[in-house]
Amino acid sequence: MTIRPGQKSDVPEILKLIHELAHFEKEPEAVKTTEEDLLRDGFSSTPFFHTLILEEEGEVQGMALYFFNWSTWEGRPSLYLEDLYVKDSARGKGFGRSLLIKLAQIAVEKNCARFEWEVLDWNQKARDFYHQLGAEYMEGWLPYRVEGEKLIALSERS
Amino acid sequence: MTIRPGQKSDVPEILKLIHELAHFEKEPEAVKTTEEDLLRDGFSSTPFFHTLILEEEGEVQGMALYFFNWSTWEGRPSLYLEDLYVKDSARGKGFGRSLLIKLAQIAVEKNCARFEWEVLDWNQKARDFYHQLGAEYMEGWLPYRVEGEKLIALSERS
Repeated sequence: MTIRPGQKSDVPEILKLIHELAHFEKEPEAVKTTEEDLLRDGFSSTPFFHTLILEEEGEVQGMALYFFNWSTWEGRPSLYLEDLYVKDSARGKGFGRSLLIKLAQIAVEKNCARFEWEVLDWNQKARDFYHQLGAEYMEGWLPYRVEGEKLIALSERS
Repeated sequence: MTIRPGQKSDVPEILKLIHELAHFEKEPEAVKTTEEDLLRDGFSSTPFFHTLILEEEGEVQGMALYFFNWSTWEGRPSLYLEDLYVKDSARGKGFGRSLLIKLAQIAVEKNCARFEWEVLDWNQKARDFYHQLGAEYMEGWLPYRVEGEKLIALSERS
Protein backbone atom coordinates (compact mmCIF):
# COMPACT_ATOMS: atom_id res chain seq x y z
CA MET A 1 0.00 0.00 0.00
CA THR A 2 1.37 3.44 -0.91
CA ILE A 3 0.07 6.96 -0.32
CA ARG A 4 1.17 9.74 -2.68
CA PRO A 5 0.02 13.25 -3.64
CA GLY A 6 -2.64 13.30 -6.35
CA GLN A 7 -1.74 14.52 -9.84
CA LYS A 8 -3.69 15.68 -12.89
CA SER A 9 -3.96 12.17 -14.28
CA ASP A 10 -5.80 11.07 -11.11
CA VAL A 11 -8.69 13.46 -11.70
CA PRO A 12 -11.10 10.92 -13.30
CA GLU A 13 -10.52 8.49 -10.41
CA ILE A 14 -10.84 11.27 -7.78
CA LEU A 15 -14.21 12.28 -9.24
CA LYS A 16 -15.38 8.66 -9.17
CA LEU A 17 -14.48 8.39 -5.47
CA ILE A 18 -16.25 11.72 -4.72
CA HIS A 19 -19.40 10.20 -6.29
CA GLU A 20 -19.04 6.99 -4.29
CA LEU A 21 -18.66 8.96 -1.05
CA ALA A 22 -21.75 11.08 -1.80
CA HIS A 23 -23.69 7.86 -2.37
CA PHE A 24 -22.52 6.53 0.99
CA GLU A 25 -23.55 9.85 2.59
CA LYS A 26 -27.06 9.31 1.16
CA GLU A 27 -26.77 12.30 -1.20
CA PRO A 28 -25.99 10.58 -4.53
CA GLU A 29 -27.38 13.49 -6.58
CA ALA A 30 -25.45 16.17 -4.69
CA VAL A 31 -22.26 16.10 -6.75
CA LYS A 32 -22.16 18.86 -9.39
CA THR A 33 -18.36 18.72 -9.69
CA THR A 34 -16.75 18.00 -13.06
CA GLU A 35 -13.25 16.91 -14.06
CA GLU A 36 -12.67 20.48 -15.30
CA ASP A 37 -13.52 21.86 -11.83
CA LEU A 38 -11.01 19.53 -10.18
CA LEU A 39 -8.28 20.38 -12.71
CA ARG A 40 -8.89 24.14 -12.46
CA ASP A 41 -9.07 24.42 -8.67
CA GLY A 42 -6.76 21.63 -7.54
CA PHE A 43 -3.91 21.59 -10.02
CA SER A 44 -3.06 25.22 -10.77
CA SER A 45 -0.08 27.09 -9.30
CA THR A 46 -2.22 28.31 -6.37
CA PRO A 47 -4.60 25.40 -5.77
CA PHE A 48 -7.67 25.60 -3.52
CA PHE A 49 -7.14 22.00 -2.36
CA HIS A 50 -4.69 19.12 -2.23
CA THR A 51 -5.23 15.37 -2.60
CA LEU A 52 -3.67 12.14 -1.38
CA ILE A 53 -4.10 8.93 -3.37
CA LEU A 54 -3.90 5.51 -1.72
CA GLU A 55 -2.91 2.67 -4.05
CA GLU A 56 -2.56 -1.06 -3.58
CA GLU A 57 -0.84 -3.03 -6.34
CA GLY A 58 -1.11 -0.04 -8.67
CA GLU A 59 -4.89 0.32 -8.19
CA VAL A 60 -6.39 3.40 -6.54
CA GLN A 61 -8.28 2.26 -3.43
CA GLY A 62 -8.85 5.51 -1.57
CA MET A 63 -8.23 9.22 -1.38
CA ALA A 64 -8.26 12.28 0.82
CA LEU A 65 -8.99 15.86 -0.22
CA TYR A 66 -7.82 18.61 2.12
CA PHE A 67 -6.82 22.26 2.39
CA PHE A 68 -5.45 24.69 4.96
CA ASN A 69 -7.54 26.94 7.18
CA TRP A 70 -6.17 29.32 9.81
CA SER A 71 -6.92 29.61 13.50
CA THR A 72 -7.10 33.11 15.02
CA TRP A 73 -6.59 31.58 18.48
CA GLU A 74 -3.55 29.49 17.59
CA GLY A 75 -1.98 31.91 15.09
CA ARG A 76 -1.17 28.93 12.91
CA PRO A 77 -2.82 27.07 10.02
CA SER A 78 -5.15 24.09 10.47
CA LEU A 79 -5.37 21.15 8.12
CA TYR A 80 -9.01 20.70 7.11
CA LEU A 81 -10.03 17.32 5.71
CA GLU A 82 -12.93 17.78 3.30
CA ASP A 83 -13.25 14.19 2.07
CA LEU A 84 -11.77 10.85 3.08
CA TYR A 85 -12.86 7.78 1.19
CA VAL A 86 -11.79 4.16 0.86
CA LYS A 87 -13.50 1.93 -1.70
CA ASP A 88 -16.05 -0.48 -0.32
CA SER A 89 -14.04 -3.45 -1.60
CA ALA A 90 -10.90 -2.23 0.22
CA ARG A 91 -12.39 -1.74 3.70
CA GLY A 92 -11.07 -3.42 6.82
CA LYS A 93 -7.41 -3.13 5.82
CA GLY A 94 -6.63 -0.01 7.85
CA PHE A 95 -6.44 2.23 4.77
CA GLY A 96 -8.58 5.00 6.30
CA ARG A 97 -6.34 4.97 9.35
CA SER A 98 -3.23 5.17 7.15
CA LEU A 99 -4.63 8.17 5.31
CA LEU A 100 -5.46 9.93 8.60
CA ILE A 101 -1.95 9.30 9.96
CA LYS A 102 -0.41 10.64 6.72
CA LEU A 103 -2.63 13.76 7.00
CA ALA A 104 -1.55 14.24 10.63
CA GLN A 105 2.09 14.08 9.45
CA ILE A 106 1.42 16.73 6.79
CA ALA A 107 -0.34 18.89 9.42
CA VAL A 108 2.69 18.70 11.73
CA GLU A 109 5.14 19.42 8.86
CA LYS A 110 3.12 22.48 7.86
CA ASN A 111 3.12 23.93 11.41
CA CYS A 112 -0.63 23.29 11.90
CA ALA A 113 -2.02 23.41 15.41
CA ARG A 114 -5.09 21.40 14.41
CA PHE A 115 -6.38 18.75 12.05
CA GLU A 116 -10.12 19.17 11.54
CA TRP A 117 -13.10 17.71 9.66
CA GLU A 118 -16.86 17.19 9.95
CA VAL A 119 -18.73 13.93 10.32
CA LEU A 120 -22.38 13.00 9.85
CA ASP A 121 -24.06 12.50 13.23
CA TRP A 122 -25.47 9.07 12.28
CA ASN A 123 -22.06 7.69 11.32
CA GLN A 124 -21.27 6.26 14.75
CA LYS A 125 -18.70 3.84 13.33
CA ALA A 126 -16.65 6.73 11.96
CA ARG A 127 -17.11 8.75 15.15
CA ASP A 128 -15.86 5.88 17.34
CA PHE A 129 -12.90 5.45 15.02
CA TYR A 130 -12.02 9.16 15.20
CA HIS A 131 -12.19 9.13 19.00
CA GLN A 132 -9.74 6.20 19.04
CA LEU A 133 -7.31 8.32 17.04
CA GLY A 134 -7.44 11.19 19.54
CA ALA A 135 -10.08 13.38 17.90
CA GLU A 136 -12.74 15.26 19.84
CA TYR A 137 -16.22 16.40 18.87
CA MET A 138 -16.23 20.22 19.17
CA GLU A 139 -19.50 20.44 21.04
CA GLY A 140 -21.11 23.86 21.09
CA TRP A 141 -19.96 25.03 17.64
CA LEU A 142 -22.64 24.90 14.95
CA PRO A 143 -21.92 25.06 11.20
CA TYR A 144 -23.88 27.73 9.32
CA ARG A 145 -24.07 28.35 5.59
CA VAL A 146 -25.59 30.69 2.98
CA GLU A 147 -25.59 29.20 -0.51
CA GLY A 148 -26.96 29.40 -4.04
CA GLU A 149 -29.62 32.02 -4.68
CA LYS A 150 -29.63 33.10 -1.04
CA LEU A 151 -25.92 33.92 -1.35
CA ILE A 152 -26.56 35.99 -4.49
CA ALA A 153 -29.45 37.76 -2.70
CA LEU A 154 -27.24 38.54 0.32
CA SER A 155 -24.52 39.95 -1.93
CA GLU A 156 -27.08 42.30 -3.53
CA ARG A 157 -28.39 43.75 -0.25
CA SER A 158 -27.29 47.22 0.74
CA MET B 1 -18.33 53.83 7.26
CA THR B 2 -15.88 52.15 4.88
CA ILE B 3 -14.76 48.54 4.46
CA ARG B 4 -11.34 47.82 2.94
CA PRO B 5 -8.87 44.91 2.79
CA GLY B 6 -6.55 44.72 5.78
CA GLN B 7 -2.87 45.57 5.36
CA LYS B 8 0.31 44.96 7.35
CA SER B 9 -0.11 48.17 9.35
CA ASP B 10 -3.51 46.89 10.63
CA VAL B 11 -1.95 43.88 12.37
CA PRO B 12 -1.81 45.39 15.90
CA GLU B 13 -5.47 46.42 15.65
CA ILE B 14 -6.50 43.02 14.18
CA LEU B 15 -4.85 41.23 17.11
CA LYS B 16 -6.63 43.51 19.57
CA LEU B 17 -9.99 42.63 17.98
CA ILE B 18 -9.15 38.90 18.02
CA HIS B 19 -8.57 39.24 21.79
CA GLU B 20 -11.84 41.14 22.29
CA LEU B 21 -13.77 38.45 20.37
CA ALA B 22 -12.19 35.64 22.44
CA HIS B 23 -13.26 37.49 25.57
CA PHE B 24 -16.83 37.74 24.23
CA GLU B 25 -16.69 33.99 23.42
CA LYS B 26 -15.81 33.35 27.09
CA GLU B 27 -12.32 32.09 26.23
CA PRO B 28 -10.15 35.15 27.05
CA GLU B 29 -7.02 33.04 27.62
CA ALA B 30 -7.36 31.07 24.37
CA VAL B 31 -5.47 33.46 22.07
CA LYS B 32 -1.85 32.39 21.52
CA THR B 33 -1.54 34.41 18.29
CA THR B 34 1.16 37.07 17.98
CA GLU B 35 1.62 39.98 15.57
CA GLU B 36 4.43 37.95 13.95
CA ASP B 37 1.98 35.06 13.29
CA LEU B 38 -0.50 37.40 11.60
CA LEU B 39 2.22 39.03 9.48
CA ARG B 40 3.76 35.70 8.44
CA ASP B 41 0.54 33.86 7.58
CA GLY B 42 -1.71 36.69 6.36
CA PHE B 43 0.55 39.06 4.48
CA SER B 44 2.94 36.89 2.46
CA SER B 45 2.62 36.25 -1.29
CA THR B 46 0.53 33.11 -0.61
CA PRO B 47 -1.44 34.03 2.52
CA PHE B 48 -3.42 31.53 4.58
CA PHE B 49 -6.12 34.14 5.28
CA HIS B 50 -7.51 37.52 4.24
CA THR B 51 -8.95 40.34 6.32
CA LEU B 52 -11.49 43.12 5.95
CA ILE B 53 -11.27 46.26 8.08
CA LEU B 54 -14.32 48.38 8.88
CA GLU B 55 -13.59 52.02 9.71
CA GLU B 56 -15.75 54.93 10.79
CA GLU B 57 -14.19 58.39 10.73
CA GLY B 58 -10.73 56.85 10.35
CA GLU B 59 -11.11 54.60 13.42
CA VAL B 60 -11.14 50.79 13.11
CA GLN B 61 -14.49 49.55 14.48
CA GLY B 62 -14.61 46.00 13.22
CA MET B 63 -13.01 43.30 11.12
CA ALA B 64 -13.51 39.99 9.39
CA LEU B 65 -10.93 37.25 8.87
CA TYR B 66 -11.67 34.68 6.15
CA PHE B 67 -10.16 32.17 3.73
CA PHE B 68 -11.25 29.86 0.93
CA ASN B 69 -12.23 26.23 1.32
CA TRP B 70 -13.39 23.94 -1.48
CA SER B 71 -16.53 21.87 -1.83
CA THR B 72 -16.24 18.44 -3.46
CA TRP B 73 -19.99 18.46 -4.13
CA GLU B 74 -20.10 21.90 -5.76
CA GLY B 75 -16.73 21.75 -7.52
CA ARG B 76 -16.16 25.35 -6.50
CA PRO B 77 -14.53 27.20 -3.59
CA SER B 78 -16.41 28.27 -0.44
CA LEU B 79 -15.70 31.41 1.50
CA TYR B 80 -15.14 30.46 5.15
CA LEU B 81 -15.51 33.21 7.74
CA GLU B 82 -13.26 32.45 10.71
CA ASP B 83 -13.89 35.62 12.74
CA LEU B 84 -16.29 38.54 12.52
CA TYR B 85 -16.10 41.20 15.19
CA VAL B 86 -17.48 44.69 15.76
CA LYS B 87 -16.32 46.67 18.80
CA ASP B 88 -18.76 46.82 21.69
CA SER B 89 -18.96 50.62 21.42
CA ALA B 90 -19.90 50.40 17.72
CA ARG B 91 -22.77 47.90 17.98
CA GLY B 92 -26.29 48.57 16.72
CA LYS B 93 -25.15 50.48 13.62
CA GLY B 94 -25.44 47.58 11.18
CA PHE B 95 -21.66 47.15 10.88
CA GLY B 96 -21.79 43.36 11.28
CA ARG B 97 -24.43 43.20 8.57
CA SER B 98 -22.29 45.39 6.27
CA LEU B 99 -19.29 43.10 6.75
CA LEU B 100 -21.40 40.00 5.98
CA ILE B 101 -22.78 41.61 2.80
CA LYS B 102 -19.25 42.56 1.69
CA LEU B 103 -18.10 38.98 2.32
CA ALA B 104 -21.05 37.64 0.29
CA GLN B 105 -19.97 39.94 -2.56
CA ILE B 106 -16.41 38.62 -2.39
CA ALA B 107 -17.76 35.04 -2.34
CA VAL B 108 -19.81 35.68 -5.50
CA GLU B 109 -16.86 37.42 -7.26
CA LYS B 110 -14.60 34.46 -6.44
CA ASN B 111 -17.05 31.90 -7.89
CA CYS B 112 -17.90 30.45 -4.46
CA ALA B 113 -20.99 28.28 -4.14
CA ARG B 114 -21.14 28.82 -0.38
CA PHE B 115 -20.35 31.25 2.39
CA GLU B 116 -19.81 29.37 5.66
CA TRP B 117 -18.91 29.87 9.31
CA GLU B 118 -19.53 28.40 12.77
CA VAL B 119 -21.44 29.95 15.66
CA LEU B 120 -21.58 29.14 19.36
CA ASP B 121 -24.84 27.38 20.21
CA TRP B 122 -25.67 29.79 23.08
CA ASN B 123 -25.35 32.87 20.86
CA GLN B 124 -29.03 32.98 19.90
CA LYS B 125 -28.84 36.66 18.96
CA ALA B 126 -26.22 35.91 16.31
CA ARG B 127 -28.09 32.82 15.13
CA ASP B 128 -31.33 34.79 14.65
CA PHE B 129 -29.40 37.45 12.78
CA TYR B 130 -27.78 34.87 10.46
CA HIS B 131 -31.15 33.28 9.70
CA GLN B 132 -32.49 36.71 8.71
CA LEU B 133 -29.66 37.00 6.20
CA GLY B 134 -30.53 33.68 4.55
CA ALA B 135 -28.15 31.38 6.41
CA GLU B 136 -29.07 27.88 7.53
CA TYR B 137 -27.78 25.72 10.36
CA MET B 138 -26.25 22.60 8.78
CA GLU B 139 -27.88 20.13 11.14
CA GLY B 140 -26.36 16.66 11.15
CA TRP B 141 -22.73 17.66 10.51
CA LEU B 142 -20.49 17.61 13.58
CA PRO B 143 -17.10 19.34 13.80
CA TYR B 144 -14.24 17.07 14.90
CA ARG B 145 -10.67 18.00 15.74
CA VAL B 146 -7.29 16.51 16.77
CA GLU B 147 -4.93 19.07 18.22
CA GLY B 148 -1.77 19.71 20.20
CA GLU B 149 -0.06 16.66 21.66
CA LYS B 150 -2.76 14.34 20.34
CA LEU B 151 -1.99 15.55 16.82
CA ILE B 152 1.74 14.88 17.33
CA ALA B 153 0.89 11.42 18.72
CA LEU B 154 -1.33 10.62 15.73
CA SER B 155 1.40 11.70 13.30
CA GLU B 156 3.81 9.30 15.01
CA ARG B 157 1.58 6.22 14.79
CA SER B 158 2.35 3.61 12.19
